Amino acid sequence: MNADAVVEDLIAALPEATVDTDPATLARCSHDDAEWAEFAIPSAVVFATSTDDVVRTVQIAARHGVPVVPRGAGTGLSGGANATAGCIVLSLERMTAVVRVDVEERYAVVQAGVLNDDLRRHVAEVGLWYPPDPASQAISTIGGNVATNAGGICCVKYGVTRDYVLGLTVVLADGQVATVGRTTAKGVTGYDLAGLFVGSEGTLGIVVEVTLKLLPLSGREERAVIGYFGSLTDAGRAVAAVSGAGIIPSALELIDRTCLHAVAEWQGWELPEGASALLLAKVDEPGARGEELAARIETEFRAAGGSRIERAVEPDEVARLFAARRLAYPALERLGPVLTEDVCVPRRAVPEMLARIEQAAADEGVVIANIAHAGDGNLHPLIIAPEGDDEAKRRAKRAFDRIVDDCRALGGTVTGEHGVGLLKLPGAAEELSPVVQDLHSRIKHALDPRSILNPGKAFPNGAS
Amino acid sequence: MNADAVVEDLIAALPEATVDTDPATLARCSHDDAEWAEFAIPSAVVFATSTDDVVRTVQIAARHGVPVVPRGAGTGLSGGANATAGCIVLSLERMTAVVRVDVEERYAVVQAGVLNDDLRRHVAEVGLWYPPDPASQAISTIGGNVATNAGGICCVKYGVTRDYVLGLTVVLADGQVATVGRTTAKGVTGYDLAGLFVGSEGTLGIVVEVTLKLLPLSGREERAVIGYFGSLTDAGRAVAAVSGAGIIPSALELIDRTCLHAVAEWQGWELPEGASALLLAKVDEPGARGEELAARIETEFRAAGGSRIERAVEPDEVARLFAARRLAYPALERLGPVLTEDVCVPRRAVPEMLARIEQAAADEGVVIANIAHAGDGNLHPLIIAPEGDDEAKRRAKRAFDRIVDDCRALGGTVTGEHGVGLLKLPGAAEELSPVVQDLHSRIKHALDPRSILNPGKAFPNGAS
Repeated sequence: MNADAVVEDLIAALPEATVDTDPATLARCSHDDAEWAEFAIPSAVVFATSTDDVVRTVQIAARHGVPVVPRGAGTGLSGGANATAGCIVLSLERMTAVVRVDVEERYAVVQAGVLNDDLRRHVAEVGLWYPPDPASQAISTIGGNVATNAGGICCVKYGVTRDYVLGLTVVLADGQVATVGRTTAKGVTGYDLAGLFVGSEGTLGIVVEVTLKLLPLSGREERAVIGYFGSLTDAGRAVAAVSGAGIIPSALELIDRTCLHAVAEWQGWELPEGASALLLAKVDEPGARGEELAARIETEFRAAGGSRIERAVEPDEVARLFAARRLAYPALERLGPVLTEDVCVPRRAVPEMLARIEQAAADEGVVIANIAHAGDGNLHPLIIAPEGDDEAKRRAKRAFDRIVDDCRALGGTVTGEHGVGLLKLPGAAEELSPVVQDLHSRIKHALDPRSILNPGKAFPNGAS
Repeated sequence: MNADAVVEDLIAALPEATVDTDPATLARCSHDDAEWAEFAIPSAVVFATSTDDVVRTVQIAARHGVPVVPRGAGTGLSGGANATAGCIVLSLERMTAVVRVDVEERYAVVQAGVLNDDLRRHVAEVGLWYPPDPASQAISTIGGNVATNAGGICCVKYGVTRDYVLGLTVVLADGQVATVGRTTAKGVTGYDLAGLFVGSEGTLGIVVEVTLKLLPLSGREERAVIGYFGSLTDAGRAVAAVSGAGIIPSALELIDRTCLHAVAEWQGWELPEGASALLLAKVDEPGARGEELAARIETEFRAAGGSRIERAVEPDEVARLFAARRLAYPALERLGPVLTEDVCVPRRAVPEMLARIEQAAADEGVVIANIAHAGDGNLHPLIIAPEGDDEAKRRAKRAFDRIVDDCRALGGTVTGEHGVGLLKLPGAAEELSPVVQDLHSRIKHALDPRSILNPGKAFPNGAS
């Protein structure tokens, strides 16, 4: 491939100021938030402003046999948007139009570059709600959410991105444009291609437009219940008890000791003596029903040994109770670069998994704090490695690998919501059988025979 | 292909009493409930009792280049299980084991032949609930539900089969066994292959085992609200008003005039003067919240001109109010063979679609009654054609085609929940763009290059 010729063709084919080869831009767009994964410098970054720009970019890439690495806001945590040397990074961040909101039928059609929070605000004005709430919601794009099938806090009750994708417009590897899915509430005409593209990390097609199912904004009323626990086992019993009581909370988060201490030290909080975990729950049923559910969660927390239990219904108070959850990540980032893990185990295995993570941290001599979507069994161990300390980084990587192995041993999956990208390729190679890996390769080859689209991501041997 | 050799090989490879070539069996298993679609007599019916039986059958079919048509209970309504001449019909109906129910993690692993209602009863004993409730639930298999991505009445609130499929074990076209998906609450390792197999009507693989997400059985309390309407427009306004009020009912069904009269004549009921439609709603929030929602639905029904409105919360009374819905289909079957349509339009287009169906019925001189999942925009026009009247059958077919065209003109999809099978191939050819049809062919070819698995079904040119 001739990088200069590629860039020349892109500049000739695309509108002015669409193709950027400034070294600072190339560097900025060479990776997502998974800097621990490999990345290299692309030939150019295309800032598409239309489907047509995407089509032309893919056509040029196909002609030259150059990979295209699609990119939303670059908030991914698995390296799915990391560039390969000389590739074209195709940014969708300028495609920010909300094309249409159908209030009666409750769906929105948006371009891929719309930020999750911008969509929320937009549809809230007409009484509608888009549930999926990844932690990055203020800065991540819907296209990126779709590419990774992003989850979030409320998915314990409301499901993940895929559950809200009714249809997609996708640019295929040969530059053809496919519109898949529907706008009706139901529909089974043909294969579920929309579902297949969701979570495929840009390896099968580049999502340019998304039709999203929405829910009514009204009829919800948030109540929070939080409580501290003296051991991970106690916290685990509380989670199991809530679930066993048939309650499906709209959030059920856990913050471990290391994380709690980081927040407490930063904010000057005093923690209860011996606090090993904080559980934070929300329910959103309105009125007496919500009150009853919050009271039952409180009862279960207390029965499992919870202390300093608090409940709130006023929005400010709810936010105050959830402050530790909000502050956890920034509190840890103060301690050094954070490698964010993402494993999902059976709910009942959460305490055991957390105990194994503590052990891995102790054995490898690294700091690992944990945030967990406990109600889903989805854990985010946050591994801290001091800047510039290569030995510490190696130990962190070993801890990372142990966590993946332990998760598998407990019947879990190596990525709950962040995607395989690059970081989880070894884990995915363990988790997916050779037959299933071969199915991936066959589908990839059927849709992208020359492996132009984000090669090497999303599943083992994706580059082959 | 040599049919005798195929049968010989099957008999040699499979356990005794697994291969059936009795003409009565061949005839019985030559089609599903879509007798209007083409079918022919198979060479043999294999009644698999294990995954291994399925593997051997597929291997023999592949060796001989003979199609395999998988079959659950044969309750499909689109011809997806209709046999081609000389094919092997592979029945999963004897694979009825509930392999495992994990109460804490709320999922069940079942073989494909388990009946929907049997699964419900089984998991209800441990306090769990499987929501998808196709009308055939008493007699249809989970495998068939998965193959067609079956819907039902409660999916207006609870979603369709795909929303409950966590994982699958599938026998591929070359006899390899693939286990896809997961048992954890979340997971994004690799492509959503489970979702791709759901609704693919056995054209990509044969589902032998299903891991299904379950919900808590407790915490629900059904309330019914019904009301008669003097015009379809009024009924449509009531549906829109309920939806516009942000209420998501657990059922919102419509029965039209023709259907109502068939039931009333059969049962000796007296209908309100000029009744054009009956709306039947349910909500399932417990206690005061449910009471409030039922009252609001009553208010909306009344405001839209509803009459003889009734509400109930006692289970027997709820069942009584929904009797017309339960009796509608048998009432119509008394009038002659029923061709069941299945289109889905935007909710707001339901009255217009029903008006067009009335017009088509009048123009073609056929009886068409309508049951609709109004809350989803999913209509089931039931076309009656007297037995043995070929001219009536032709007129019925013309009405069928008009309905499909009208649905498309109103922005709908040609199948809401029954699947493409054979009957909706022409409609699917209209609905899916050539690019999207080509995507189907490429995926089919990648997974089943010799087109052994249910060729010619599920999407246009599936046989090629």
